[in-house]
Amino acid sequence: MNILPEERLRAFTHRVFKAIGCSDADASLATDVLITADLRGVDSHGVARLSGYVRLWENGRLNAAPKPRIVHETPTTATVDGDGGLGLVVAPYAMEIAIEKAKHYGSGWVAIRNSNHFGIAGYHALKAVAQDMIGYAVTNASPLVAPTFSTERLLGTNPICYAFPAGKYPPVVVDMATSAAANGKLEVAGRAGKPIPEGWALSPDGRTTTDAAAVKNGGALLPLGSDRAHGSHKGYGLSATVDILSGVLSGANYGPWVPPFVAYLQPVADQPGHGIGHFVGAMRVDGFRPVADFKAHMDQWIARFKGAKRVNEQQPVIIPGEPEYEATHTNRVNGIPLVEAVWADLQQLAAKLEIAPLAMEGEHTTGNG
Amino acid sequence: MNILPEERLRAFTHRVFKAIGCSDADASLATDVLITADLRGVDSHGVARLSGYVRLWENGRLNAAPKPRIVHETPTTATVDGDGGLGLVVAPYAMEIAIEKAKHYGSGWVAIRNSNHFGIAGYHALKAVAQDMIGYAVTNASPLVAPTFSTERLLGTNPICYAFPAGKYPPVVVDMATSAAANGKLEVAGRAGKPIPEGWALSPDGRTTTDAAAVKNGGALLPLGSDRAHGSHKGYGLSATVDILSGVLSGANYGPWVPPFVAYLQPVADQPGHGIGHFVGAMRVDGFRPVADFKAHMDQWIARFKGAKRVNEQQPVIIPGEPEYEATHTNRVNGIPLVEAVWADLQQLAAKLEIAPLAMEGEHTTGNG
Repeated sequence: MNILPEERLRAFTHRVFKAIGCSDADASLATDVLITADLRGVDSHGVARLSGYVRLWENGRLNAAPKPRIVHETPTTATVDGDGGLGLVVAPYAMEIAIEKAKHYGSGWVAIRNSNHFGIAGYHALKAVAQDMIGYAVTNASPLVAPTFSTERLLGTNPICYAFPAGKYPPVVVDMATSAAANGKLEVAGRAGKPIPEGWALSPDGRTTTDAAAVKNGGALLPLGSDRAHGSHKGYGLSATVDILSGVLSGANYGPWVPPFVAYLQPVADQPGHGIGHFVGAMRVDGFRPVADFKAHMDQWIARFKGAKRVNEQQPVIIPGEPEYEATHTNRVNGIPLVEAVWADLQQLAAKLEIAPLAMEGEHTTGNG
Repeated sequence: MNILPEERLRAFTHRVFKAIGCSDADASLATDVLITADLRGVDSHGVARLSGYVRLWENGRLNAAPKPRIVHETPTTATVDGDGGLGLVVAPYAMEIAIEKAKHYGSGWVAIRNSNHFGIAGYHALKAVAQDMIGYAVTNASPLVAPTFSTERLLGTNPICYAFPAGKYPPVVVDMATSAAANGKLEVAGRAGKPIPEGWALSPDGRTTTDAAAVKNGGALLPLGSDRAHGSHKGYGLSATVDILSGVLSGANYGPWVPPFVAYLQPVADQPGHGIGHFVGAMRVDGFRPVADFKAHMDQWIARFKGAKRVNEQQPVIIPGEPEYEATHTNRVNGIPLVEAVWADLQQLAAKLEIAPLAMEGEHTTGNG
């Protein structure tokens, strides 16, 4: 494990995005999305993904200098074409539009097509919270999840994020995949030689399995709810909602046609849309009630749930977003931990792109690298 | 089992609402919400609830002649005070406002406080679909669900509904409680003397249980996901989102303060808000892309999912909303089935309210009774 000061990791990430041709502004923005994920302890969506973005760019599937633009609009809705750019850049562009519309009309909603992986959904939703708005962000993703009663991977882990401002407490941020478990959890179990719990995945022939390699070998992840008796049709329904808002409404791809995130898998033929899709929104809190009233009641809500009677005295009820808020504070102070594999991957990336490596001594940076 | 023509059940239901003092228009609207649930096969939310609404009215906890009004507004947002009326009447009033705002500005969002149970969420969301809009409806509800790591009932089964228009296929309607199972399923198992699957409920001391009487005896329902390993924190997060939008944002009650639906349970003291809360919204499809394009791609989405590879050859993948659409057709043609207990309950209700009973021969009615 290596532990890096935030600013050093930020400067390195900025160099990577610059090296593939991003503008200064785009590189800073994309860097901010990834570093925010690492600060929040969502390692799977931080700099660990940098080399994957670069490989997509090498394969000509990522436009490092996109010109995103509005292709359809009403006072409070819009569709943005991301010009094949990084979702890390395109989604913030779209969220700015949603926030601007909300400032004028109370709410704003933007569907995005022709984009790529947008990092953590929470980053985008929290942009609205900073303006005393409720933030919403969803995205579709490479197909890995089978709908209830099917063995076919037709849906991504399609995350949903809602973020709400609070008063004395940190914002409430619900940011969740709509599958029972993330694919990364299967990979962790696989590396440790451990079985996975039943209810996470199907074998390629559609049986429940405890084999951590099931998805790698052609099986599928299960929707939240795991099986019909426990509500997998609800997880499937939520994932379908995300896919329709992100893909069908925007003119992006959807279902099994969503292009894979990894460069070694080719997009399927006859795609019905453009790239992957997102959907973001913002609603002004004071479009419904005064902000101070809302925040006071949010604080009461949070305090009541934090104080709830526990199953196990050692384990309090967790407020959505609270662990990530605490991780951010810790990682800002102590530095961001990087596992050895990610560290090595970033150093190889530096060599490939001929940029200064991560460990370079005496490196001095400014806030955005 | 009694099977009744839709119109006869509609006329009876209208008589009940009139008998407690609803206006003709309100009685027709409330009737339409309940009969739509029965037509869709969602028996738990149809006329089976009539006597419960009447008992709340008898206890002075329901205003049969409410004057709902907008108490806060921007061009695309509003908060409605339901004046303690039936949610069956107040929610459609609010949805009309959302649709009207969407017509002018692209989208409309309305938070509702001081209301009561609003029936099936799908009814309200489908109002938007009829205008080629995407419909959204959520509500908080009597606390029955414990958040992850707690034994306390702090959340309702807080349903989420998204409804999308399609082309040649019926609309896609995702309408789901955010708990692993509905309380009604425990009651069915209890009456049959059967255990429930693990993952539906906690015993009063916080252990997983297969006892169908667990919730009745002071236990709690579990969120969608059932346990931490299978994502119960996601079900809890979704339910929290519904509670915040419906309760905290509107000025209604939230969490454990939401008043019970049943008249024999008293609301807790020191309520922070007014009645129960809902949140509804509408977005014009053509605020994002031409309606014909959207519908063509919805049809492709639906066809692809319907045709997905099956686990079991006899069981196709189900499109959300499809079973309810088919049930509506069947029940329109064959009549609405009522189990004996509901039939008896409605006849007692007729006697109490001194109105013509359900089975009365030679009854002739018009469309809205």
